[in-house]
Amino acid sequence: MDKFRVAVVGALGAVGTEMTKTLENRKFPISEFIPMDIESMAGKKVTFRGKEATVRAAKAGAFRDVDIAIFSAGSEASLKLAPIAVSEGAIVIDNSAAWRMEPGIPLVIPEVNPDALDGHKGIIANPNCSTIQMLVAAKPIHDKYKIKRIVVATYQAVSGTGAPAIAELKSQAKQYTEGKPIEVNVYPRQIFFNLIPHIDDFTENGYTKEEMKMVNETHKILDPAIAVSPTAVRVGVIRGHSESVNIETEKPFEVADIVKLLKKAPGITVMDDPSKKIYPTPLDCDGKYDTFVGRIRRDPTVPNGLNIWVVSDNLLKGAALNAVQIAETLVEKGLKSRKM
Amino acid sequence: MDKFRVAVVGALGAVGTEMTKTLENRKFPISEFIPMDIESMAGKKVTFRGKEATVRAAKAGAFRDVDIAIFSAGSEASLKLAPIAVSEGAIVIDNSAAWRMEPGIPLVIPEVNPDALDGHKGIIANPNCSTIQMLVAAKPIHDKYKIKRIVVATYQAVSGTGAPAIAELKSQAKQYTEGKPIEVNVYPRQIFFNLIPHIDDFTENGYTKEEMKMVNETHKILDPAIAVSPTAVRVGVIRGHSESVNIETEKPFEVADIVKLLKKAPGITVMDDPSKKIYPTPLDCDGKYDTFVGRIRRDPTVPNGLNIWVVSDNLLKGAALNAVQIAETLVEKGLKSRKM
Repeated sequence: MDKFRVAVVGALGAVGTEMTKTLENRKFPISEFIPMDIESMAGKKVTFRGKEATVRAAKAGAFRDVDIAIFSAGSEASLKLAPIAVSEGAIVIDNSAAWRMEPGIPLVIPEVNPDALDGHKGIIANPNCSTIQMLVAAKPIHDKYKIKRIVVATYQAVSGTGAPAIAELKSQAKQYTEGKPIEVNVYPRQIFFNLIPHIDDFTENGYTKEEMKMVNETHKILDPAIAVSPTAVRVGVIRGHSESVNIETEKPFEVADIVKLLKKAPGITVMDDPSKKIYPTPLDCDGKYDTFVGRIRRDPTVPNGLNIWVVSDNLLKGAALNAVQIAETLVEKGLKSRKM
Repeated sequence: MDKFRVAVVGALGAVGTEMTKTLENRKFPISEFIPMDIESMAGKKVTFRGKEATVRAAKAGAFRDVDIAIFSAGSEASLKLAPIAVSEGAIVIDNSAAWRMEPGIPLVIPEVNPDALDGHKGIIANPNCSTIQMLVAAKPIHDKYKIKRIVVATYQAVSGTGAPAIAELKSQAKQYTEGKPIEVNVYPRQIFFNLIPHIDDFTENGYTKEEMKMVNETHKILDPAIAVSPTAVRVGVIRGHSESVNIETEKPFEVADIVKLLKKAPGITVMDDPSKKIYPTPLDCDGKYDTFVGRIRRDPTVPNGLNIWVVSDNLLKGAALNAVQIAETLVEKGLKSRKM
């Protein structure tokens, strides 16, 4: 079997760390693992499959021996470096928002639109975390019953912001329990024992960029005819995004059939037995690959209405895992390593 | 001015404590303050306006000298004791769910339906916390533009469950920061650094009782024609319920006019300037009387769609304050103390 030289760009970040672990755990066929990060981090070590790999500075020239470069280093780095990496012969799977809405760049959730990968030109975008789990759950419903409209409210973990936000939530918890003043740096407000209805910058129309990602990425990935009305909220949870998703379909359905569809869909675990208090919470999904769906019930306020509750690990299916699954799908579709 | 003998039943609980404080702060005309609680608590002291009052056992015979009894002692106590209190001559304002949906019992938010108090028969019900703040915000919009449908997702603080839940959240925070095992007693799962899509018992239709309260109480208080599709979620916040509220009206509106209506409506503070990161969070509303509304924006996915974000202190407007406001409204409407 062909093996690949795989770089993780932003290897020392919260998502980069998960990418390395996910590549290990899923036994991706790797001949050489190349961690990359900003110049000042070059020389540090990252352990991969029990061996130390040296962090390489991510810059022009660094990608000449790379088959697949998985980027999680922010939009600015991706905008600058992804085209360079492609020009040096690598395929880029980019976790930032930089390329997602660019025409001609595939935006891919392997369970939803794997064939968007065909004919890619080197850069493939990984969707936003909150979009991925919503669409994994929406896809089987849309295929059979055609979704017209989604009203979604999110409950998003701080790890989506990165390692400094995790540190801030934890240190605010410590400050609180020790009776010390609570320091606020990463978020506009204290996040511990609080929540903030504001993720990413606000846009002209009153929605945040995070909310508009859920609208625009749904249109690009699943169907431009699906109307999405989002509210994105940061909560004091470390890991695991939750979403209250209200769906209206064109065709009538039985709730039992929705449950059946979700149960057999790839990447979904149905956790739904209220009588036994079975429904997904963020802690139930921490470290898991699947998207978890519970609280599946009819919304009787519209002709074909449905409410579901969707939880997934935002660092895995929402980021690292989806990126690695894109690489796996490329291999399944015939990607070969460059012979050098 | 007439003064009243006011009892708070459940005076030692989380809401009871707030009721006592609210009666003090709002200068309710009180000639005698009578804290009541279960028999085993009788004899304890509660401070009211600088003086100690002795807790009286809440039981038959205890209400003979009471003008107004504000109950926050759970449904069971209310079912049993409210009719007794009324037969002994008191007016009962009940914070439990026991009497809310009973025909002939007024269910009142003073800003929304004060005239429902007219012709009451002794028991007046205080609505559920999550309903109150939603309807305070919905009322001015409904009056002018007629609301057809609401899709709401809640983010509810643990204080809604009571003092043991506050203690559990705080002790889980302490256990976490000290690296100790986390003990779970009050909720079905750990609530610290987590959230739980389950408040009150589940009903046959897959919705919880908490969710059905939002449906049924909206119909009784505001308009039976408003369709409500709710999801109620408990979050790791001590105080302050938040709600993402998606509204569809019958008549077309300008968002600027909605903002104007909300600004002049009683009991509402508009906190909405995204450019300055102004929007309500639970900590912003802790200890405040108003219902705070922010993130006011058009939902373009339906003809007359609106998204708003509503936060209020669940122990105050969601419970104690609303109960005291009901008493104030009764006085405004001519309630007299019994002469004995």
